[in-house]
Amino acid sequence: MNQKIYRVNVRDRTITEEPIPAAYRKLGGRGLTSALVSAEVPPRCHPLSSENKLIIAPGLLAGSLASTSGRLSVGGKSPLTGGIKESNAGGTAGQALGWLGIAAILLEDLPEDPEARYVLKFNSEGGTLENHPELAGLGNYATCDSLRAIYGAKSTSFLTIGPVGELKLAAASIAVTDREGRPTRHAGRGGLGAVMGSKGVKAIVLDTAGVQRPKGHDPKAMQRASQRLAKLMADHPVSGETLPLYGTNALAEVINAAGAYPTRNFSTGTFEGVHKISGETERDTILARGGNPRHGCQAGCTIQCSSIYPGADGDYISKGPEYETVWANGANCGIDDLDAIAQIDRLDDDLGLDTIEMGCVFAVAMEGGLLPFGDASGVIRLLDEEIRHGTPLGRILASGTETTGRIFGVCRIPCVKGQAMPAYDPRSIKGIGVTYATSPMGADHTAGYTIAQNVLHVGGQIPPLETEGQVDLSRELQIATAALDSTGLCLFVAFPMLDGPEVAEALMELLTAYRGESWTLDDYLALGRSTLHRELDFNRRAGFSPVADRLPDFMRREALPPHDSVFDIPDEELDKVHETIR
Amino acid sequence: MNQKIYRVNVRDRTITEEPIPAAYRKLGGRGLTSALVSAEVPPRCHPLSSENKLIIAPGLLAGSLASTSGRLSVGGKSPLTGGIKESNAGGTAGQALGWLGIAAILLEDLPEDPEARYVLKFNSEGGTLENHPELAGLGNYATCDSLRAIYGAKSTSFLTIGPVGELKLAAASIAVTDREGRPTRHAGRGGLGAVMGSKGVKAIVLDTAGVQRPKGHDPKAMQRASQRLAKLMADHPVSGETLPLYGTNALAEVINAAGAYPTRNFSTGTFEGVHKISGETERDTILARGGNPRHGCQAGCTIQCSSIYPGADGDYISKGPEYETVWANGANCGIDDLDAIAQIDRLDDDLGLDTIEMGCVFAVAMEGGLLPFGDASGVIRLLDEEIRHGTPLGRILASGTETTGRIFGVCRIPCVKGQAMPAYDPRSIKGIGVTYATSPMGADHTAGYTIAQNVLHVGGQIPPLETEGQVDLSRELQIATAALDSTGLCLFVAFPMLDGPEVAEALMELLTAYRGESWTLDDYLALGRSTLHRELDFNRRAGFSPVADRLPDFMRREALPPHDSVFDIPDEELDKVHETIR
Repeated sequence: MNQKIYRVNVRDRTITEEPIPAAYRKLGGRGLTSALVSAEVPPRCHPLSSENKLIIAPGLLAGSLASTSGRLSVGGKSPLTGGIKESNAGGTAGQALGWLGIAAILLEDLPEDPEARYVLKFNSEGGTLENHPELAGLGNYATCDSLRAIYGAKSTSFLTIGPVGELKLAAASIAVTDREGRPTRHAGRGGLGAVMGSKGVKAIVLDTAGVQRPKGHDPKAMQRASQRLAKLMADHPVSGETLPLYGTNALAEVINAAGAYPTRNFSTGTFEGVHKISGETERDTILARGGNPRHGCQAGCTIQCSSIYPGADGDYISKGPEYETVWANGANCGIDDLDAIAQIDRLDDDLGLDTIEMGCVFAVAMEGGLLPFGDASGVIRLLDEEIRHGTPLGRILASGTETTGRIFGVCRIPCVKGQAMPAYDPRSIKGIGVTYATSPMGADHTAGYTIAQNVLHVGGQIPPLETEGQVDLSRELQIATAALDSTGLCLFVAFPMLDGPEVAEALMELLTAYRGESWTLDDYLALGRSTLHRELDFNRRAGFSPVADRLPDFMRREALPPHDSVFDIPDEELDKVHETIR
Repeated sequence: MNQKIYRVNVRDRTITEEPIPAAYRKLGGRGLTSALVSAEVPPRCHPLSSENKLIIAPGLLAGSLASTSGRLSVGGKSPLTGGIKESNAGGTAGQALGWLGIAAILLEDLPEDPEARYVLKFNSEGGTLENHPELAGLGNYATCDSLRAIYGAKSTSFLTIGPVGELKLAAASIAVTDREGRPTRHAGRGGLGAVMGSKGVKAIVLDTAGVQRPKGHDPKAMQRASQRLAKLMADHPVSGETLPLYGTNALAEVINAAGAYPTRNFSTGTFEGVHKISGETERDTILARGGNPRHGCQAGCTIQCSSIYPGADGDYISKGPEYETVWANGANCGIDDLDAIAQIDRLDDDLGLDTIEMGCVFAVAMEGGLLPFGDASGVIRLLDEEIRHGTPLGRILASGTETTGRIFGVCRIPCVKGQAMPAYDPRSIKGIGVTYATSPMGADHTAGYTIAQNVLHVGGQIPPLETEGQVDLSRELQIATAALDSTGLCLFVAFPMLDGPEVAEALMELLTAYRGESWTLDDYLALGRSTLHRELDFNRRAGFSPVADRLPDFMRREALPPHDSVFDIPDEELDKVHETIR
């Protein structure tokens, strides 16, 4: 495919268009961001310095009509982990970049004027960089309103940062607009919003007016393969039934029943209030209030696991909070009020914050005595007053879980490589603990989602409390995920893919038909391996030793109810995860 | 010698007396704290968790009549660096421990009651642990006043923490009283005050009433060797003339002239206001106001480099601020007001803060826009209002330079292993850069003081801007210092020791006569090597990779005026420093 790369130097305000180098032609998404970070960012640089780069890349299938193919990868050196980061988002930007033929955008150097708030715009004619200082300090919702007033609403997709990204704080996300133009899908993990803030870029506008969807190399084969993939996804119970019906939050009851639903800062594995915040309750609430329980975050998605969450008055509050968001700001904070969680979700989206990191921040702050567990209005006040205005307390909280723990003298810090853990306690589901420990991304459930085999019995069964088999499982999933994250497809394609060979076949057909090069499963898995290899190598050069691939010490010492289990996969086993890849 | 170890379990409030194990009999000070930390503290534990220990040990010569032999070592896993830490202090506690026959005190576990403020007292009859919650939140000066009211003034020495240690923040020091009972000598580096705070111990009282000075194995040989050492120290120009006359701050003009006096957060190497804050000016000011320009921090010291600094009204403000304190809170913050620096010194001592770390904190906060460079009254206000009261902003600042940088989005962070650099820019004096980079303690000038050879021409001459020879120099000094820090002698003994063999001979005579075992120079250097080995091994097990042995990236990129030099000793050379020790 004919794709281009844009380098945007924010110091001299130049935009350079380059054809994608031959060596990178079979890379996209995470594969491309990690290759570029690995090649161009000095591993020991400060993440907010001129030497770091923010790299935005859609997947290999971006712009195609394949379902869920518009996921976006954002890469750079993470201000949160100090390692390489790929943060993945839904929404409309991935497809827009595909339509515009853009393989990657690189933001380079630092602005001369720290007060500048650049808006970077791409359309069919190329890129422009304009300073809009009036956007300074605006939340993502208001920013998107302003951008629409300037750039139009019809064919535009926005990537924006909120005030937290402008403050360059390590829990800052990058928001991507959904089909309604709302900043509800986020490259949340790892603080890349702070890197965008350090570059002085408040927003990226992608305008596809007058642009045709790329047909790809073989449009007919493309269409056949897309339809085949869509049918396989529709036929699988997870991607075809559970997710469309209840969304991601279908997991709340399931993981709570498994005793792995981290509650009150990872002090127990079940939450007495789970029924009040479950996916079933969320769906009922949305339906009762006239909201939309089934919504796609991007056009053409056949799963449509998102939803629209209205208040009691029927007015929009936020998109339906996802499983991780409900857990982090619910059970983990002792909060069982779904409306409050939706408000927190809205505030996180508006301020530009990772909802997982922030739920863990508040839980640690609660353990440290800043506010009591369960104090939802306290969390809302801290978000809307302290963080929004960048007060010292707000800056502490928006710097992430580990920093908050340091400031409030808390020892139970559920982080790996400085990044807070998602919604599965690794003492009760040990496979995911292997992924948290060994992923180059820090604690990240999406990097190797063993919940499939450990709990959902998709792709096999490996009992969650066993130590045997988890290392091999996590390794294979991490390789496959690194490949999938390069295609731009949603991770939820993995459910049917794990249960039979047809999805992988359809995917190879798709890649071959769209890209015009031959793709085999071997090519695909080699892409996963080489991507992981680059990431691990970057982290090694950044200073990560094998000891960075460990869970926090307390998870080996404090037994978690109800199974009273600790994480007991030996260190030497953890070291084997990437042995063949390093 | 018959010495004992006390284990104090703060959870069950028991104090256990043990004879010093045979394997540890030839260890003292840093050698002993590092051996105990290495053997008993899990390297991956959280520094504020029950698994960390605070270990207090005087040197091998503690309690003897040898000049400067009362230095104290405090060890543990550092909340600031995450690695092993030995923090070294003057004052009266080291001698008191020697008189009491105590080789080490270990504080273990965590208290049941987080509101407890224990006072741990040792006298000739053993140890007691009393709860004095009324001491909560008191500054070190008020704490010492209260302790004197309870425990008497005559024969007592105190180790105390201020409010910052109680808040368990990473810049917290442990104060040691001087001969006037003032909390002016600090185990400042590495945040061990936070570990003491986590143990719920507000103070340790050492009462030597009715105790005789230990005579040692061979009192006559001891006296001869002590006198020989004292004469050699008096005869050397640094320990016999410069330090007694001007104190440590004699260095200000010297290091400024070398272009290595880090100014305004390490952005240039000379300070236009140096004459206003130099050792010469400090001495003149003290004399003009009727203060004492020559004062020993412990009894029997023949150097007496300390002083007493009064205000314009003649009333005591603080001990004379040391070179590092004057620099950190002076040039590095753009402050040229010696009275303000003395007030800052007093506040740091009272709050229980490392003056080096805090000067770097304020300089980074100034670069981040919190207050302008040169704003001394702003610094005083932040210390006395925000930090004293533990406000969110106060907690940020008292968490150290790296955390302050994260919160205020600053990239120029002059830290190694999370610990702020002292008063010598390693771009202008490259030997000290090798020490900063490779010492297991983080950036620490005392760990291998190449300023002697690089600038002062003591012990040879190795030009400061050369890259050749610095690695070997730093290694030899790091080994010798690890040994010296085990004797309890002051580092200033190193000046005459570097200029001839007599001091080392006298020292071996002293050790042999006092301890009753034979000590040769080979034994002594082997102690240095084994101590460093244990420390490096602990850090490796804690997760430090060779990349932790690097200076911050900006020091390789940003040239420092006036020499416009960068730190250019290759990484491979740095890796050779401890190659034979690891």
